[in-house]
Amino acid sequence: MRRFGQVIKVKPEKLAYYLELHANPWPSVIKKIEDCNIRNYSIFLFNDSMLFAYFEYVGNDFEADMKRMAEDKETQRWWKETDPCQETLGINPGEWWHNMKEIFHC
Amino acid sequence: MRRFGQVIKVKPEKLAYYLELHANPWPSVIKKIEDCNIRNYSIFLFNDSMLFAYFEYVGNDFEADMKRMAEDKETQRWWKETDPCQETLGINPGEWWHNMKEIFHC
Repeated sequence: MRRFGQVIKVKPEKLAYYLELHANPWPSVIKKIEDCNIRNYSIFLFNDSMLFAYFEYVGNDFEADMKRMAEDKETQRWWKETDPCQETLGINPGEWWHNMKEIFHC
Repeated sequence: MRRFGQVIKVKPEKLAYYLELHANPWPSVIKKIEDCNIRNYSIFLFNDSMLFAYFEYVGNDFEADMKRMAEDKETQRWWKETDPCQETLGINPGEWWHNMKEIFHC
């Protein structure tokens, strides 16, 4: 199992809509997340301006599973709603959510 | 089970020492964390300046367990090392780590 901690900005003017989407996420999207071996996925809001995500990956090929998720039509439809609410931190080229380094676990 | 997402600043000049401490945490401190019903505790580093923590609380009285942890001599000795490495965000009075709101879970 691999643990992930990620961070991204949320646009203040889109925050209410982002919260609304995540209070009632689409069942098709949740099903695909699970199907792609993601478990225990939480998103936390910091200071009405940043999102911190935590999840666990229980599969054997993360890149392949993420590719499969990105190819899913319902997920694409969901991201079309959520992406405009977010703004990448631009720390690493090609990253949307920024992957943080885990420095401790127990 | 309750999930927590927390955030705090880490002082750049103390980062190396903080990482060193958390790469080899004291067994007595880990034991107390578990004894106080904390599970699956991860800390992630963002931008060499902020720490993001995720953990799960599996007990029945979080405040009592945190009080018990704070009274533990070994934990106090650990915090004497870690506290000077950190700086609270000062968002809520009395908070050290800032508790974020969970806006999504699956």
